[in-house]
Amino acid sequence: RIYNIASIPGDGIGVDITEAAVQVLTTLSNTLGGFEFEFKTFDWSSKKYLERGWYMEDDGLEQLKKYDAIYFGAVGWPDVPDHISLWSLILPIRKALNQYVNVRPTRILEGTKSPLAAVQASPSDLNWVIVRENSEGEYSGQGGTSHEHSEHAIATEVSIFTQVGIERIMRFAFETAKSRPRKKLTMVTKSNAQRHGMVLWDKIFYKVAKEYPDIEIDKMLVDAMTVRMVYNPKSLDTIVATNLHADILSDLAAALSGSIGIAPSSNLDPTRKNPSMFEPIHGSAPDIAGKGIANPVGAFWSAAEMVRWLGQEKAADGLMKAIENVTAAGVKTRDLGGDKNTVEVTLAVCAEIEKL
Amino acid sequence: RIYNIASIPGDGIGVDITEAAVQVLTTLSNTLGGFEFEFKTFDWSSKKYLERGWYMEDDGLEQLKKYDAIYFGAVGWPDVPDHISLWSLILPIRKALNQYVNVRPTRILEGTKSPLAAVQASPSDLNWVIVRENSEGEYSGQGGTSHEHSEHAIATEVSIFTQVGIERIMRFAFETAKSRPRKKLTMVTKSNAQRHGMVLWDKIFYKVAKEYPDIEIDKMLVDAMTVRMVYNPKSLDTIVATNLHADILSDLAAALSGSIGIAPSSNLDPTRKNPSMFEPIHGSAPDIAGKGIANPVGAFWSAAEMVRWLGQEKAADGLMKAIENVTAAGVKTRDLGGDKNTVEVTLAVCAEIEKL
Ligand SMILES: CC(C)[C@H](C(=O)O)[C@@H](O)C(=O)O
Ligand SMILES: CC(C)[C@H](C(=O)O)[C@@H](O)C(=O)O
Repeated sequence: RIYNIASIPGDGIGVDITEAAVQVLTTLSNTLGGFEFEFKTFDWSSKKYLERGWYMEDDGLEQLKKYDAIYFGAVGWPDVPDHISLWSLILPIRKALNQYVNVRPTRILEGTKSPLAAVQASPSDLNWVIVRENSEGEYSGQGGTSHEHSEHAIATEVSIFTQVGIERIMRFAFETAKSRPRKKLTMVTKSNAQRHGMVLWDKIFYKVAKEYPDIEIDKMLVDAMTVRMVYNPKSLDTIVATNLHADILSDLAAALSGSIGIAPSSNLDPTRKNPSMFEPIHGSAPDIAGKGIANPVGAFWSAAEMVRWLGQEKAADGLMKAIENVTAAGVKTRDLGGDKNTVEVTLAVCAEIEKL
Repeated sequence: RIYNIASIPGDGIGVDITEAAVQVLTTLSNTLGGFEFEFKTFDWSSKKYLERGWYMEDDGLEQLKKYDAIYFGAVGWPDVPDHISLWSLILPIRKALNQYVNVRPTRILEGTKSPLAAVQASPSDLNWVIVRENSEGEYSGQGGTSHEHSEHAIATEVSIFTQVGIERIMRFAFETAKSRPRKKLTMVTKSNAQRHGMVLWDKIFYKVAKEYPDIEIDKMLVDAMTVRMVYNPKSLDTIVATNLHADILSDLAAALSGSIGIAPSSNLDPTRKNPSMFEPIHGSAPDIAGKGIANPVGAFWSAAEMVRWLGQEKAADGLMKAIENVTAAGVKTRDLGGDKNTVEVTLAVCAEIEKL
């Protein structure tokens, strides 16, 4: 079985870690056999934008639809305003390909540790999966600016929440909770201050909850949620939140689990009518770009999630095992307290894969 | 000099900690002399709402305008939907009394510690002040729901950002940064995903920055900011953020500094045409309400900020010293790792005040 993968390295360390992920995925298929990856690289980046004025070709989204999955590095570069780069690349892909779920698992990998003094390496101390609404809410793009160059400019950001959009993310979150041992779902909201869309969000959560009587539920305000993540990480399991809230909470989650450099994300179209997209949650990190020291673990973990989504469960488990053997052995980049570079970690993971 | 203080205990532990704060403030004025507080209690609470259908009298906001300052406990109770309670009490006060700034200092008090393993008790390790926009943005209240009881309901939350609103908060933030030794201001935004209001926010930040060439500035995306708060707390000093972003970041800040129970907030009208309002950042905590174990330190620190705003600098410093003598002596509630209750901590602080 050949999987056709669209690879979009993008900007900064996105390039380094995508190269590393391709190498690891190739080693994985070569070692295990039975499936292969064929990568097509799309050079859609801020560098290209500065040269030619665009990121994707006009039919870029259509091109992507032909692939089995998309592997994405990172986008964002100081010379291009972020709202241009993001709205030219990652956000249109998420939206046009109906990737309405963004799944962000967090746990403490072997050999790494949480910055929280009270959290031990024990896997049960911090083991979450954040289900992020990925298609609407605060990222709807609606709004505008009036009187722009006057002294009374006014701008709006309009968050859109639809019944369909909320129901499908809630259902996905309940299914995720159901698939995990603890059968527990925490819903995050800010319906005390935001009294329209967030109230609908709450209402639909409780409605869908009735279909899942075996799932233990609770509700948190997004501000209080950060406190709970710091003080009572054990009490959380599956978490569902809006586009913006989950964006913030998933960065915090990654930080609390040891480094933003290890955290993966899967942009899923659960209907499978479109390819899903896999990317580490870290950004393009201009400060360390080109130095060869980026942590590739988030990229590998994302690759493992891709492999799993494509149906190769055993290979995905194998890749995760290889990654954790490497972190456990102390072969780590600086952000994890090690002294290895991207290539060294990549080769170590490949060597572990070859032992599978 | 007599200061007339409107006291609104509100719900849950708001009642306990307001009582404690009144006791401490009275002890302070009795001990130091030269000024007095006269408290008028407003019984505006969710309990009253359930009895009579309203929180404030129709002219409630007008009544408050007559006072020199407002002391607020907490609002929110399980039997009333949060968006009703909040929009009936705390949010209208902030808005109607032009309290467009919410100042939230965070540092590690003596005798307490951060949950972060790398943060020592050293005061310079974590010493921030978050300047929160308190009048517009994500808390504008605009938006609505259409097709509410159908299968295609749609709801919006509209964030409003105005030139006037942004400029005044930026200016306040720069002045705050200027008053602190490090002269450093970090601006938080999400202008990569939110491309209208947040872009105006950024633009005005850089415009106002030109008036403050001596302030060192930087810009963070709100998600990445949580990571920096966890991994590099020393690098931050003054922080300015929108209503929602700062709401989230200030809860996280409080958590990282030792407990949500210690953090104060000042809702300020910098024009001084209206009374300002002082409240701990924690909520009504229904789970521990009525047990007498709430941490009153956030309430005392808020009281100290009120005393400072009223012009009694020396008394404010004295109160802070009394609080820290008590935490340093280990007289602490459970959330700080101690075993004392609200009354014990309060009496200890009063005893320290009497030694001033
Ligand atoms: C790059 C940015 C638009 C993106 C987001 O906010 O969704 C990133 O922060 C993420 O978490 O995937
Ligand atoms: C009670 C709630 C509306 C309030 C807010 O979000 O502003 C609180 O969380 C705070 O931080 O003061």
